Amino acid sequence: MDSTFKTIALIGKYKSLEIAEPLLKLADFLAGMGLTVVVDNLTGSHLKHHSYTEIALAEMGGKVDLAIVLGGDGTLLNVARTLAPFKIPLIGVNQGRLGFLTDISIETMQRTISNMLRGDYITENRMLLSAAISRDGKQIFDSLAFNDVVIHRGNNSSMIECEVLIDGEYLSNQRADGLIVSTPTGSTAYSLSAGGPILHPALEAIVLVPVAPHNLSNRPIVVKGDAQLEILMHRADEARVRFDGHTHFDLLRDDKVSISRYIEPVCLLHPRGHSYYHTLREKLLWNQPL
Amino acid sequence: MDSTFKTIALIGKYKSLEIAEPLLKLADFLAGMGLTVVVDNLTGSHLKHHSYTEIALAEMGGKVDLAIVLGGDGTLLNVARTLAPFKIPLIGVNQGRLGFLTDISIETMQRTISNMLRGDYITENRMLLSAAISRDGKQIFDSLAFNDVVIHRGNNSSMIECEVLIDGEYLSNQRADGLIVSTPTGSTAYSLSAGGPILHPALEAIVLVPVAPHNLSNRPIVVKGDAQLEILMHRADEARVRFDGHTHFDLLRDDKVSISRYIEPVCLLHPRGHSYYHTLREKLLWNQPL
Amino acid sequence: MDSTFKTIALIGKYKSLEIAEPLLKLADFLAGMGLTVVVDNLTGSHLKHHSYTEIALAEMGGKVDLAIVLGGDGTLLNVARTLAPFKIPLIGVNQGRLGFLTDISIETMQRTISNMLRGDYITENRMLLSAAISRDGKQIFDSLAFNDVVIHRGNNSSMIECEVLIDGEYLSNQRADGLIVSTPTGSTAYSLSAGGPILHPALEAIVLVPVAPHNLSNRPIVVKGDAQLEILMHRADEARVRFDGHTHFDLLRDDKVSISRYIEPVCLLHPRGHSYYHTLREKLLWNQPL
Amino acid sequence: MDSTFKTIALIGKYKSLEIAEPLLKLADFLAGMGLTVVVDNLTGSHLKHHSYTEIALAEMGGKVDLAIVLGGDGTLLNVARTLAPFKIPLIGVNQGRLGFLTDISIETMQRTISNMLRGDYITENRMLLSAAISRDGKQIFDSLAFNDVVIHRGNNSSMIECEVLIDGEYLSNQRADGLIVSTPTGSTAYSLSAGGPILHPALEAIVLVPVAPHNLSNRPIVVKGDAQLEILMHRADEARVRFDGHTHFDLLRDDKVSISRYIEPVCLLHPRGHSYYHTLREKLLWNQPL
Repeated sequence: MDSTFKTIALIGKYKSLEIAEPLLKLADFLAGMGLTVVVDNLTGSHLKHHSYTEIALAEMGGKVDLAIVLGGDGTLLNVARTLAPFKIPLIGVNQGRLGFLTDISIETMQRTISNMLRGDYITENRMLLSAAISRDGKQIFDSLAFNDVVIHRGNNSSMIECEVLIDGEYLSNQRADGLIVSTPTGSTAYSLSAGGPILHPALEAIVLVPVAPHNLSNRPIVVKGDAQLEILMHRADEARVRFDGHTHFDLLRDDKVSISRYIEPVCLLHPRGHSYYHTLREKLLWNQPL
Repeated sequence: MDSTFKTIALIGKYKSLEIAEPLLKLADFLAGMGLTVVVDNLTGSHLKHHSYTEIALAEMGGKVDLAIVLGGDGTLLNVARTLAPFKIPLIGVNQGRLGFLTDISIETMQRTISNMLRGDYITENRMLLSAAISRDGKQIFDSLAFNDVVIHRGNNSSMIECEVLIDGEYLSNQRADGLIVSTPTGSTAYSLSAGGPILHPALEAIVLVPVAPHNLSNRPIVVKGDAQLEILMHRADEARVRFDGHTHFDLLRDDKVSISRYIEPVCLLHPRGHSYYHTLREKLLWNQPL
Repeated sequence: MDSTFKTIALIGKYKSLEIAEPLLKLADFLAGMGLTVVVDNLTGSHLKHHSYTEIALAEMGGKVDLAIVLGGDGTLLNVARTLAPFKIPLIGVNQGRLGFLTDISIETMQRTISNMLRGDYITENRMLLSAAISRDGKQIFDSLAFNDVVIHRGNNSSMIECEVLIDGEYLSNQRADGLIVSTPTGSTAYSLSAGGPILHPALEAIVLVPVAPHNLSNRPIVVKGDAQLEILMHRADEARVRFDGHTHFDLLRDDKVSISRYIEPVCLLHPRGHSYYHTLREKLLWNQPL
Repeated sequence: MDSTFKTIALIGKYKSLEIAEPLLKLADFLAGMGLTVVVDNLTGSHLKHHSYTEIALAEMGGKVDLAIVLGGDGTLLNVARTLAPFKIPLIGVNQGRLGFLTDISIETMQRTISNMLRGDYITENRMLLSAAISRDGKQIFDSLAFNDVVIHRGNNSSMIECEVLIDGEYLSNQRADGLIVSTPTGSTAYSLSAGGPILHPALEAIVLVPVAPHNLSNRPIVVKGDAQLEILMHRADEARVRFDGHTHFDLLRDDKVSISRYIEPVCLLHPRGHSYYHTLREKLLWNQPL
């Protein structure tokens, strides 16, 4: 087949048994099209016997032209953070109800993906956040986030208190359960539950959303995508910073969390006809009678 | 002096050194009026030499006619939970900015309190919540709460999931950061930050307020004060229940939290002229130009 | 039939042609049970030939033991306001999707209602509001409201400004698009859209909900059902007060709107097994996956 | 004086008498610096005798290098809409409490403005919206808006219902009191009261904020500044569209409101040291204890 994507990596939801069969079926289908198929090694360890080369996510740079993720939005978030430095485009296949990021149904994936491999797709770049934590002037942790970086009081009964700087300028002191720093992608996740706005994915912007803020006039604020955020912990008893709700790091008083846009965007491929607004209506039940 | 309150207990903010002097001054003033003054023993342990009888909060039932608390609203909350079974009325004196509950200034306390002891006061009953936690059919913890009982995901990155029954009838499954069950007193505290309504203290009602709920149409609901609430934990990875943000208990899956109005209200005494709405305007900055 | 309800009034949605057939069918069914059936005269004027006595809503007091409304919640609201002084219980039959108040389906109404007439029903009393408008010290308008009394800026581009007193005590000055004063029944209508809490119908309470308030710490406040509210218009350029979104009255500066609980509640009859929380879950889509 | 601004227009708050004296004082001060001063003719008609050339706002294009507005934010909004096509930079002087746009105090204006005329200023471009209303395929009205374009039900008791398209793609049907389409500048005005986020002024973005939406999962959505919005009125009984709350136009069913970014931004000049976040903290009382 005359696709620009010669080598395709398949990645399944972590430890999901029901993904094994459709994943191998898709592998065979793609191999039958003359494409080289590799399988993420963590995914492979849960597959029965198969003949595809296994390769770790972190080793895919330069070797893989396209990654297809079978799972839910959470799986794609995790894969996207790891593959982001390598500029490998991603396709998301959902085993259940379609997600914001995994918008192809497992039932129709063969036809949809073969159309996409023939060039029938839409490219969408989405920004990630890069966060670093400094203590006593030294960087002690860093992580990417595709949805959000969340500073939260964790198990503590007291609010966090932190000072927020944007591009070096003082914004405010936040006293709240938490502070969400979200990408447009994350704006329909936790940020939305906490009262944040929806940001169209094409917008280069970051939104800061307080969770249950003490000050009732403390509202979500949207800043430019290239803003440099610094968050200084004034009170951080058992506070924690979480990245996409996946990894976390425990904060101490006077720690600084620096957040900015990651240099590389995630490149998502969608089938032609994909509509962000359609997904929004479906997920938020906007078409249901009330 | 011809007061109905013969024996008066003085209780100071825990471990607060600056409360010592005004507390002893008030003690001397009341003793000078011919009243019997006792001092909470925890408070007493932080006072220098004094001649007043010390007595534990838990021993005050039947021995004390009135308790005067010097501290902030948090101190009064704690004292009120302990004294609630004894029907001892409470007066709150605030060392700093006046609170919702501690509405007498330390500067003017002598004159205000002597007027109140002459009968010039307003009585206000406020409801408390009584909560019990059951595991495998056995009650394993219980506590009172004056502000709120809060079930929260704590350090966990996943939402809590719990099933809420009101008077034995199924209300809904809650998926959220947390669920606040608040009295009218607590409605101006954490509940308000999470989007709950203000409940006038004279209202016999309980409000359930979700924190950052997954379902965007999940809204605060106000039920009658005599409602029997049961909350069954369907997902409780590191969930915790907190009482007035003071004590807490770690929950497990399938634990049941039962909450209802405590049989005895807290009786607060206010100086004549006290206005709840005035306090509300002051605390919420309603009179400030925007 | 041995029902306590001997004479039953049938009332259909105003000017609705599709209600005619099921209404007459229900009339024949009830007459066949030996009950006396009368028809609201406005409804009757849209029926073809029928032999039932027609009677105006306002004349039903003392003559009718039960009123059955066929329509939606809006129809029942209107009927309830008119019948409220007469203490006539109401049953609501819905021609479409079940409502909060009209909870019997037109498809199953015969069986459900015959069970209810045999005594198999739940009685629920719901409070109404009574509102009066005074100008220059004279009352110039009054109305009942089952859902809400709403003061709104109408076509004007400026906010309304009004002063709110509760039981003669000053609450606050409101600057907003509008101010909603809602019963528990109305709490799931316009009030909910404006950010108000859900009030369980058994709660004797009134909620004041600002619409798009200028002051960001202005929040809904719930007061006791017997509270006396007075709203003084400080700025009322083209302001209007609306009652259940049905009738309205144009306000002028310095007008006073007085609102309190109406002396008679509306008595609703529900089929056994009726669940308020079930309706809530259905209407607010709480059971839908997001 | 060696300023790049040779001819300076002074514009005062409409019909404001108290602006006359400081305005003429500023005029004399600027003239004393060797600059040419002209006065807006509407402003001039309320000044006593003066010797400055009067000129209509709409005639200032090409003749004026800088406009200084004395009044509040509302005055500057109005001036900005009229001057926007001419690319004349604006300075805002406030007679009362400083505004978001009028950030120079009348007390200190002489020193501040003379510093700015020496080059000591910050330039900030802010986007405006251009809106057009079409009926039966013909454009029948158009207007600029610096804050917001608001479609509102006006005096009608029913919600508006409209269909929103973004860049030709269907977003949703809106049923609400109104729909606010706001610039970053407008995000701290009416939009904020209705629950919208704060948008930093440097962000090229438009936010759509429903007012009291019927659907509880209907949330503010932020789209790119170059988005083309079309709003089709499905129900518009007495609906009205308002521009900056200043001008308005009555809508009919099937009218289309098209909104996009105006080609020219407004250019604001601020004194060095100006801080948007500082203004935000002041206006939203973020520094006040609660």
